[in-house]
Amino acid sequence: MNTTVLDLAKTLISRASVTPQDQDCQDLIASHLVPLGFYAEKMRFEEVDNLWLRRGTASPVLVFAGHTDVVPTGPLEKWDTAPFTPTEKNGVLYGRGAADMKSSIAAFVIAAKEFVTQHPHHKGSIAMLITADEEGPSVNGTVRVCDALKARNENLDYCIVGEPTSDKQLGDVVKNGRRGSLNGELLIKGKQGHVAYPHLARNPIHLCAAAIDELARTEWDQGNEYFPPTTFQISNFHAGTGAGNVVPSQANILFNFRFSSASTAESLKNRVNTILTSHRLEYSLTWTLSGEPFLTPRAELSKAMAKAILDETGISTELSTTGGTSDGRFIAKICPQVIEFGPINASIHQINENIEISTLEPLKNIYRRTLEHLLL
Amino acid sequence: MNTTVLDLAKTLISRASVTPQDQDCQDLIASHLVPLGFYAEKMRFEEVDNLWLRRGTASPVLVFAGHTDVVPTGPLEKWDTAPFTPTEKNGVLYGRGAADMKSSIAAFVIAAKEFVTQHPHHKGSIAMLITADEEGPSVNGTVRVCDALKARNENLDYCIVGEPTSDKQLGDVVKNGRRGSLNGELLIKGKQGHVAYPHLARNPIHLCAAAIDELARTEWDQGNEYFPPTTFQISNFHAGTGAGNVVPSQANILFNFRFSSASTAESLKNRVNTILTSHRLEYSLTWTLSGEPFLTPRAELSKAMAKAILDETGISTELSTTGGTSDGRFIAKICPQVIEFGPINASIHQINENIEISTLEPLKNIYRRTLEHLLL
Repeated sequence: MNTTVLDLAKTLISRASVTPQDQDCQDLIASHLVPLGFYAEKMRFEEVDNLWLRRGTASPVLVFAGHTDVVPTGPLEKWDTAPFTPTEKNGVLYGRGAADMKSSIAAFVIAAKEFVTQHPHHKGSIAMLITADEEGPSVNGTVRVCDALKARNENLDYCIVGEPTSDKQLGDVVKNGRRGSLNGELLIKGKQGHVAYPHLARNPIHLCAAAIDELARTEWDQGNEYFPPTTFQISNFHAGTGAGNVVPSQANILFNFRFSSASTAESLKNRVNTILTSHRLEYSLTWTLSGEPFLTPRAELSKAMAKAILDETGISTELSTTGGTSDGRFIAKICPQVIEFGPINASIHQINENIEISTLEPLKNIYRRTLEHLLL
Repeated sequence: MNTTVLDLAKTLISRASVTPQDQDCQDLIASHLVPLGFYAEKMRFEEVDNLWLRRGTASPVLVFAGHTDVVPTGPLEKWDTAPFTPTEKNGVLYGRGAADMKSSIAAFVIAAKEFVTQHPHHKGSIAMLITADEEGPSVNGTVRVCDALKARNENLDYCIVGEPTSDKQLGDVVKNGRRGSLNGELLIKGKQGHVAYPHLARNPIHLCAAAIDELARTEWDQGNEYFPPTTFQISNFHAGTGAGNVVPSQANILFNFRFSSASTAESLKNRVNTILTSHRLEYSLTWTLSGEPFLTPRAELSKAMAKAILDETGISTELSTTGGTSDGRFIAKICPQVIEFGPINASIHQINENIEISTLEPLKNIYRRTLEHLLL
């Protein structure tokens, strides 16, 4: 009897593969595809298991990308069912990874099996890039595999990342890019003193308030055809020892930009420094660029995916670049067309993560139809 | 042989009377004065020892006020000498309480002894109000004694608080009032969310920055003849859980006013609320009035003290209302003229607290001369 998407999703969910653990999920995936002519290459970097699968040597190369790792469960007692015991209830499959993204992996594995069984002589190549370090530091996962592929001139043409992009119904949103993410760690310097003698102190909270206000009100860009405007958010502001009579010596601030391709990390850094300097602040600022923005213009891949969704579900999908980062940013550096598509994301990273069972077969069919559009 | 100021100061310092402990300092003080005709009344409230001494029944009543309690030593290993082992070195007496304010107590006790010995039939009355709860919560100390005196209609005319008010040299500063102190605990309400989706959150740091800036820049008053302008300082600003991708749900802010008699606590509260409301903030605000301002205009007491200082040291003293709070604020409610005068305050509350031994006799003489000006 053939393995269904539901079967495979449940088996994957039953493995507690919290980042950076894979728990042999990748071996299980390979075991489904190697008998059908896929070449499997394990790429372990440090503590992270990665898997590269490919069937065929010709172009175009269509890659499915995914991660077998999941985020931690959070407090177990808050779950209605054990997070690593896949549980069907009222047409819903519960378990950590059900939406992000073991069901997607199950769906594209079964889609590929069906496709190559029906079309053993398809054009181009089908590949899969599976990591176990997407939810963690993302250092020894997709980025290292892409480096290795690039080093040996293994070229990619299309990539579908199985992230849960759907909003209200399966198929309503496809991501064709992601904003960049830039973090700043800002230290405003003051001078400690007693609140009764403020002329002997310099209060960093007072000193920086106007600059914070200006940063918060600044329009960084207006976005563009594909991206919403860049946003700036302060996540942490800490100053003071708790004592009510002491002017603190410094304020520690963490902030984050989610930025469109209408800005660059360098332009944002320069503008922040200009604002801080214009307020005559004494400060130090450390930057961490956690992701450059990437964008895939409307072309063969997004069109094929949109047609597959329309044919399978009747929905005219929306191309979007909102939301957090994903491994798409790394793959985009070696692949001209990268999109992300997968199940409804409402429950991801949450207690009682789940997926509607009725969406599993359509999800698989959308992936298979996309293959048909591009590789037949 | 007569006890000198130095002898008595050393005996008092040798008792580790950290708030609210008195360690029989008050009994020692009483033992010096009762033989000279002082009536001694112990007023213990809860865990706090207080002592009321009075010689005579007539007006005017001149009260010396002081506290036997001291602040904690801090790290013992940082002291050059044991803090409760009074140590003379190069003309300086070291020990916790040397400046704040066991030397002052020793000085006014010996001054009173000398005065009544020379002038047993002085006019009016000499009194002393000694507490062991000035450095702590200040709940069961001077404020309770004042309540008791008021309840039995025991009227006071002049009060000299022995706080260390001198700045560079003994005698250069007398305090004739203190600013009020008003604390605010402000909670700015926002809405938690993910930094990637700021339109779904409300960032309390962003929301309040302009209001903080306005509060920091506001001129609350210009002070007056006796007081410097009111000051506003934020001592603590805390928002954020440490996570760099979360918009915090609230910001917690502590601030303090040191306010002159040109403002009132009510006027400051109203103005803060007006500013916060004008910025459309959702907030809650809890106030604690830790001291009303008090002021003693130039009159008999300050004039007598100034003349005593001039005659003893050649210094024209300055009347000042700067600095922190003291028990003077409580006594001022039942006594029309309250001033504070004592040794140099540079080392108070610090490691290696000390007093120059050469200032002890002049300090005693200034207190005695003031008695002579007012009660002869």
